[in-house]
Amino acid sequence: MVTEFAEIEVKPGMEREFIAGVEKSKAAFLRSAGCHGLHLMRAVENPLKFVLHVQWESVAHHMELFRAAPEFQEWRGNVAHCFAAPPVVWHGELVV
Amino acid sequence: MVTEFAEIEVKPGMEREFIAGVEKSKAAFLRSAGCHGLHLMRAVENPLKFVLHVQWESVAHHMELFRAAPEFQEWRGNVAHCFAAPPVVWHGELVV
Repeated sequence: MVTEFAEIEVKPGMEREFIAGVEKSKAAFLRSAGCHGLHLMRAVENPLKFVLHVQWESVAHHMELFRAAPEFQEWRGNVAHCFAAPPVVWHGELVV
Repeated sequence: MVTEFAEIEVKPGMEREFIAGVEKSKAAFLRSAGCHGLHLMRAVENPLKFVLHVQWESVAHHMELFRAAPEFQEWRGNVAHCFAAPPVVWHGELVV
């Protein structure tokens, strides 16, 4: 199991719309192959900064299967207009 | 409840020592006021990059109480020599 970290900064004034877009996209993630959950964290120090955490069975489930699926287009359609810059995306494995 | 995110890059060759230092520090975190758990994630794309997640009752429990406590010195003593640069630290609140 890996965790996707998507570090997202949103345009000022788009915070609520972005959060609503994540809520709206939950079902699309959860019905995707190998997706085992997601949550969104917001930075206390910068209300425009968010990190989306998504649990995937493997990096390939995210980067190959999900990115090629209509659910990825749905996700991007719900939130991409809120992004101030392209998200920084990486994957983490639990070590402790 | 907030999550501390400490983004840590370690010096090449110090990865195992760093992970062992986090293991060794677990008890110091868990006996600190307001600490409700921690885990360490390692980046798949960059084996020198880690994120420590610590659950705290509030930002003050981390930044005021913990940083003034001997447990913080213990933590730094166990791991700081492994850091390639000062950690980037921020706090997140769950929104979705």
